Amino acid sequence: MPTLESLHAADREAFVALLDGVYEHSPWVAEAAWAQRPFATLAALKQALAAAVRAAGRERQLALIRAHPELAGKAAVAGRLTAESTDEQARAGLAHCTPQEFARLQQLNADYNARFGWPFILAVRGPRGVGLSRAEILAAFERRLAGHAEFEFAESLRQIHRIAEIRLNDRFGVTPAAGRQVWDWAEALAVHSDPGFAEQGQLTVTYLTAAHQACARQLQAWMRECGFDEVGLDAVGNVVGVYHGRDPAARRLLTGSHYDTVRNAGKYDGRLGILVPMAGVRALHRAGRRLPFGIEVVGYAEEEGQRYRATFLGSGALTGHFDPAWLDQADAEGVTMRQAMRAAGLPATLEAIAACRRDPARYLGFVEVHIEQGPVLDALDLPLGIVTSINGSLRYVGEVIGQASHAGTTPMGRRRDAACAAAELALFVEQRAAVVDDVVGTVGILEVPAGSVNVVPGRCRFSLDLRATTDAARDALGADVRAELQRICAMRGLQFTLERTLAAAAAPSHPAWQARWEAAVAALGLPVHRLPSGAGHDAMKLHEVMPQAMLFVRGGHAGISHNPLETITADDAELAVAAFMHLLDGLATA
Amino acid sequence: MPTLESLHAADREAFVALLDGVYEHSPWVAEAAWAQRPFATLAALKQALAAAVRAAGRERQLALIRAHPELAGKAAVAGRLTAESTDEQARAGLAHCTPQEFARLQQLNADYNARFGWPFILAVRGPRGVGLSRAEILAAFERRLAGHAEFEFAESLRQIHRIAEIRLNDRFGVTPAAGRQVWDWAEALAVHSDPGFAEQGQLTVTYLTAAHQACARQLQAWMRECGFDEVGLDAVGNVVGVYHGRDPAARRLLTGSHYDTVRNAGKYDGRLGILVPMAGVRALHRAGRRLPFGIEVVGYAEEEGQRYRATFLGSGALTGHFDPAWLDQADAEGVTMRQAMRAAGLPATLEAIAACRRDPARYLGFVEVHIEQGPVLDALDLPLGIVTSINGSLRYVGEVIGQASHAGTTPMGRRRDAACAAAELALFVEQRAAVVDDVVGTVGILEVPAGSVNVVPGRCRFSLDLRATTDAARDALGADVRAELQRICAMRGLQFTLERTLAAAAAPSHPAWQARWEAAVAALGLPVHRLPSGAGHDAMKLHEVMPQAMLFVRGGHAGISHNPLETITADDAELAVAAFMHLLDGLATA
Repeated sequence: MPTLESLHAADREAFVALLDGVYEHSPWVAEAAWAQRPFATLAALKQALAAAVRAAGRERQLALIRAHPELAGKAAVAGRLTAESTDEQARAGLAHCTPQEFARLQQLNADYNARFGWPFILAVRGPRGVGLSRAEILAAFERRLAGHAEFEFAESLRQIHRIAEIRLNDRFGVTPAAGRQVWDWAEALAVHSDPGFAEQGQLTVTYLTAAHQACARQLQAWMRECGFDEVGLDAVGNVVGVYHGRDPAARRLLTGSHYDTVRNAGKYDGRLGILVPMAGVRALHRAGRRLPFGIEVVGYAEEEGQRYRATFLGSGALTGHFDPAWLDQADAEGVTMRQAMRAAGLPATLEAIAACRRDPARYLGFVEVHIEQGPVLDALDLPLGIVTSINGSLRYVGEVIGQASHAGTTPMGRRRDAACAAAELALFVEQRAAVVDDVVGTVGILEVPAGSVNVVPGRCRFSLDLRATTDAARDALGADVRAELQRICAMRGLQFTLERTLAAAAAPSHPAWQARWEAAVAALGLPVHRLPSGAGHDAMKLHEVMPQAMLFVRGGHAGISHNPLETITADDAELAVAAFMHLLDGLATA
Repeated sequence: MPTLESLHAADREAFVALLDGVYEHSPWVAEAAWAQRPFATLAALKQALAAAVRAAGRERQLALIRAHPELAGKAAVAGRLTAESTDEQARAGLAHCTPQEFARLQQLNADYNARFGWPFILAVRGPRGVGLSRAEILAAFERRLAGHAEFEFAESLRQIHRIAEIRLNDRFGVTPAAGRQVWDWAEALAVHSDPGFAEQGQLTVTYLTAAHQACARQLQAWMRECGFDEVGLDAVGNVVGVYHGRDPAARRLLTGSHYDTVRNAGKYDGRLGILVPMAGVRALHRAGRRLPFGIEVVGYAEEEGQRYRATFLGSGALTGHFDPAWLDQADAEGVTMRQAMRAAGLPATLEAIAACRRDPARYLGFVEVHIEQGPVLDALDLPLGIVTSINGSLRYVGEVIGQASHAGTTPMGRRRDAACAAAELALFVEQRAAVVDDVVGTVGILEVPAGSVNVVPGRCRFSLDLRATTDAARDALGADVRAELQRICAMRGLQFTLERTLAAAAAPSHPAWQARWEAAVAALGLPVHRLPSGAGHDAMKLHEVMPQAMLFVRGGHAGISHNPLETITADDAELAVAAFMHLLDGLATA
């Protein structure tokens, strides 16, 4: 079995031979990575190979894709299959297709090839590395057949990198054990789901439902197994696990994320940030290690604001922000939060909730691991990214009011077309946001109410979602967009309404804490890639009282989130756990 | 009482004195019109005065507007009211407001003045010249208070011209008798309306309903009163009146328009084109005049395609286009057209319908008078316009398909925003249509389905309505728009669908017949203004078998149509009848 050392010791020919078949029928990938030796870690080797493919240009990339076999459906068809491909497809049960499945697969292969001009490529060993089910493979096939060619080309390369990753693990005898543990925990936690969703196999866990309480019990049980010293539930339902430092009274590192979900959610949004530190504490406990500081992992009970309009309730309780009016707020079934708390065995008193508040002086700071929920890391073939800031945001709803008129009889010069004005605004937002790094602007709602093919639009509704890494950049964007709307409407003789519905402050990462994540990622042999967080996170609340910094983990499927397709690999989870451990080490030796 | 002759004989000072008060406290208007003497007609004088105001510039126009009193509500308040204003407001019953109406009027005056900075101006003697009701005045006030300032400024000047028109009629002892007759017929015809609309005071007359049959009976009765020689109903329900020429076997001028309506319609769309020729025949009959040709006026039973999808059924029957499948088509209640025809006493056989077909050799040509249904004539202060072509049109529905993604976490460079692409297309359509005269293009439907403030639009639905005076210009526009959509989507990595739902050929006016309308309008002392018809008309069908040309009559309220606000004045109807008579005279002497 080769090791990184034997790889480094090999000459070029031997190096390529050792990596033969990791990229199907494409020794040129290993050849191109040769110059990048030595590799600090296996992850660094994977990066070098992926970088070689990225640099190779479209033609060689297409050749690499075409070097892969079709999904065979049964072993006998597999004329071109390498031994590894045959093994992988067998593990996925593809050798045992029903006649119906086989026919479907053949049809999909034909349709896919006709549409894109290359074979469908899927890492059939899946995100955990042990094999997808035939149903999962067929579902992925059908979904991707409907995709855009450019996206599908990039996705094929990503699947090839994932195939290579698993092959390298096998070849180097590496198993991402901690990552698989995290992955398995996330699976196990996802069996709990609210009524109306559970029946359809959808994951939905909202504040203090039976499924939510089951999750809290499960997390506590796992924390105890991991070796946390104190495990409990606080007055708002946050799961709190403490792993003492050498001195139980020592200051603590605070970490964690939320375990509630949106409706029909993914399995990692929030939860990953509880499970990764749990895996870290488990490793410390198994090694009998105590650090000069304690570790407090909080599973926040409420971040998504789904059952009640009480977003960040869980982390807010730690910073002393709890709106007393929330207790009387009723859910869709008329159950007040107070009733829901009592039913869950929580005290439901403002005194008890106030007691959740943490004294910042007792903490070193807050770190949060989170799935990116965006396409950046996936597109760059990077498992981890360091968050520079949680973007501040502004939201608006607006309407342009013109004059509806006959599409045939109103000359172009006599129109007051509300939709054209909104169109100008949408394009301005797009261009204005694009010129500043890490700023985004979106017109998500755009609608001519009751629009008709032969009527010049008299009204057009729209929304604005503007985000930036600093409040100054956010406000400059907001002011520019409003001014442009004013200019457009004045030019066109239109009126408009514009109502701000949200203003959230930016939460820039604390430089020293961001640097700790950067050092941890670098220690893994990975490129240090910094990016803002476009979505809000619990760290925004903790930001108000202590330094914070976040680590992002790549989400597959171009980072799709708030969706059952949300996915991470066990390998990426393994790297996240390793990064967390490096951060602990860095803190311990600081 | 002055006459045009006395006006022409007057020196400048006397001229201005004769017109004193026609434009409230603004002798400068008459002074500026002085240079335009002599005036062929009173209509020409009105044009000259309006032109003087148009040329005066914003400041003097504003002064003219501000020279007008507020709507007083009671005579006592009317400190600044001229005798004419007082009389006009009294005729409108404003001297007899209830306390509630008076309070409302005061509030509206205050709100309007605060919003626009000038008093609300309304020709309270209304479109017929005999006075609006207090309820109508208040409704107009409330509607216009919500308007755009630029529009309201222009509308105020238009109301001032209308006030001047009525004052000039009074001063010169002129009554637009034929116009009032047309206007009264349109009112009387509008009492018939389909169930479900009639109860709400809305006008809706769809094919072969009881209201539709009542209209047909009423039109036939009026035609008999007018002196038509033959009056009847044909197999599809068209009302046909013939006024013989000197030789009853002589070729005929064909004219007319439709008497069915859209839902919640105006009173003039279609019907005006039946009533104006009826008034013309009435005048001939009263004068005992016979022409060298007959006049056949057809009230088409069906043009709007509301009850059945059988647009242009009425005029189509004359050109031999009747789709036999229509007979089996059921309306929303399940009543087939065959059943509806039989219930209305029509034969409902293809043979009888085929017999409606006209032999073009027996006709001189087809002319159609129609309300413009657009803003052009209203904006130019012109009562009449000559149609150059009924525009050809293309309609499409389409969808841009991108990738929905998180508005916060998807960097600008990684988006596949379907709405931005559709926005680009909408602006291209607007710009491309604007560079060619008489071409229009509209994106009337624009919608991100289930759009959300924090989601980058993955889909955007849109419609296209493209019209041009020639089929070549229409097709060039269609090709350019499709190419641009292709370019936009290729640039942005998006897909699209685009389905053509309609293609209608252009129907350019026959040059000799267009010239006859031009001569008729010129003979009235009016400017000859040519414009295309953006909407389809019965003349499009007749165009297939004989020469045709249309005359447009100004619609008030910026030409709004397919709406109860659709309006014409008795004075404009008078001019339309006069133009029709001039056209007859021209034909007779040709």
